[in-house]
Amino acid sequence: MTSATGTAALAAASLLPGCSSSASKGGKKAVCDVPLNISFQEGIAPGETLAEKLDFMENLGVVGFEPGGRGLKGRVTEIKEALNGRNIKVSAICAGFQGFILAEDPEVKNLFDTTMREIVEAAGELGSTGVIMVPAFNNQTPCKPHNMDTRNYLCEELHKLGEFAKACGTTVILEPLNRKEAFYMRLVADAAAIARDADSEGVKAMGDFWHMQEETSDYGALMSAGKQYLQHVHIASRGNRKMPGENGEVDNYVEGFKALQQLGYDKYVSFECGCGGDRATLVTAAVNLLRAQWEEAKSC
Amino acid sequence: MTSATGTAALAAASLLPGCSSSASKGGKKAVCDVPLNISFQEGIAPGETLAEKLDFMENLGVVGFEPGGRGLKGRVTEIKEALNGRNIKVSAICAGFQGFILAEDPEVKNLFDTTMREIVEAAGELGSTGVIMVPAFNNQTPCKPHNMDTRNYLCEELHKLGEFAKACGTTVILEPLNRKEAFYMRLVADAAAIARDADSEGVKAMGDFWHMQEETSDYGALMSAGKQYLQHVHIASRGNRKMPGENGEVDNYVEGFKALQQLGYDKYVSFECGCGGDRATLVTAAVNLLRAQWEEAKSC
Repeated sequence: MTSATGTAALAAASLLPGCSSSASKGGKKAVCDVPLNISFQEGIAPGETLAEKLDFMENLGVVGFEPGGRGLKGRVTEIKEALNGRNIKVSAICAGFQGFILAEDPEVKNLFDTTMREIVEAAGELGSTGVIMVPAFNNQTPCKPHNMDTRNYLCEELHKLGEFAKACGTTVILEPLNRKEAFYMRLVADAAAIARDADSEGVKAMGDFWHMQEETSDYGALMSAGKQYLQHVHIASRGNRKMPGENGEVDNYVEGFKALQQLGYDKYVSFECGCGGDRATLVTAAVNLLRAQWEEAKSC
Repeated sequence: MTSATGTAALAAASLLPGCSSSASKGGKKAVCDVPLNISFQEGIAPGETLAEKLDFMENLGVVGFEPGGRGLKGRVTEIKEALNGRNIKVSAICAGFQGFILAEDPEVKNLFDTTMREIVEAAGELGSTGVIMVPAFNNQTPCKPHNMDTRNYLCEELHKLGEFAKACGTTVILEPLNRKEAFYMRLVADAAAIARDADSEGVKAMGDFWHMQEETSDYGALMSAGKQYLQHVHIASRGNRKMPGENGEVDNYVEGFKALQQLGYDKYVSFECGCGGDRATLVTAAVNLLRAQWEEAKSC
């Protein structure tokens, strides 16, 4: 778990396309051709039923759907049928398990293991990119202490979980949160390094533009996750976590989008946010804003 | 300390030059014109005396000198005189204080405050870019617990120290180390975020290519520090911390150098490493290797 010596250089050399000029070398897809795959959590689109929401999403060109993980096993057929014939796929699954992986109490840890694996199985059936998880929220106690032994334990447990997820055809995705929600893991680079040390292709990381208030650089954070570990992205306005655009100038995602384009990121940018007004209007405006900023981010 | 909302986007937008095309917009120095400023710690160059070492460095075109902080106050005149008339400046000062900033014991914390400030004053007199510090090595106990309260405390203490350093005309530079030396702060993005939250222009961060085995991406890590926080860089071979080049292919710094060039980094890349053979030969080869990789990193 600790012998990472020398791997950073090799990983960096193989992962970073660099600027557009070098990205187009070697037959790689040019930076300007990377599509923006927008996804919505279930509460984002207006509509009374899942079908109505998916209709709205399809009309907007939204191609990903991120359901919650709670009760997912019982919804696999419903979701498959609802997506049948549509240009929308399941993106990530948002948590939904009980307990937490860093619990001191074996019963709480066991509850996590059991409920998480049930969701991971359902995620695999749905062709999901992965199940989002947080190692420990601030209010989840008693929690193992924040030290090297706990990090090693986390990586060992994630290795087992990641191998299970891989066998199910999906992944588990570590989500860094801001300090108000979870001190334990706040930076994308930290999540990516944990994913690396978990040493399983089934363990990935993500960035959330809301929580990335912890970062000094959207660009640096997402480049640290890199093509190898970045499996999902969440987005919201950056002042009060509403629809992108509701907070004016601070809702700037261009530097982060540059990173996604340079990485050739082919997963989803998924809405996880509230809404401060007429939903249909603000959701549509948000999608248009992101598409405009995606264009602005292009350097070719 | 906690209201970082929205600053990430603004910081990213203002800090990131992006690819060479955008870096050359607005009259900024083009990426290909950024010079590699090499610095040596005192033990790197062959030579019996400081003058002999500096002669060797000058012949190699090394432009920075990084002395240790221990006893620096008594060496200010000696170092000034030794550098007089040479094209070598003091780069950073490598630690040298006693105690540590996260000590539980007030006496140990006080020892840090006193000895660190003496070194910072001397660093200012020498025109140094800053004094390198680690919040807590693994063997420094009892240490405050790794939680949000301690992070807030660290930022408050660093604010005071940074303002002192600024008044002295220098800075304090947070160095992330690998897990074997210091679990507390291992990622450049973490050091940069602490520097930001310390809210003082006198608090900066650095990256060390040896310790950056913790990172998933040299490029992402250094871009996270950004122009605003990145104040120093250490370099060594990446297999066993000898002279760059002694470990063959793993001694690849190109992606990190790309980040430095894109940032327009104007501080030093300083040798902190051992030597596995004839010093004059290996030091010279290392400098040549870095210059070749610096050229290779250029995207213009």
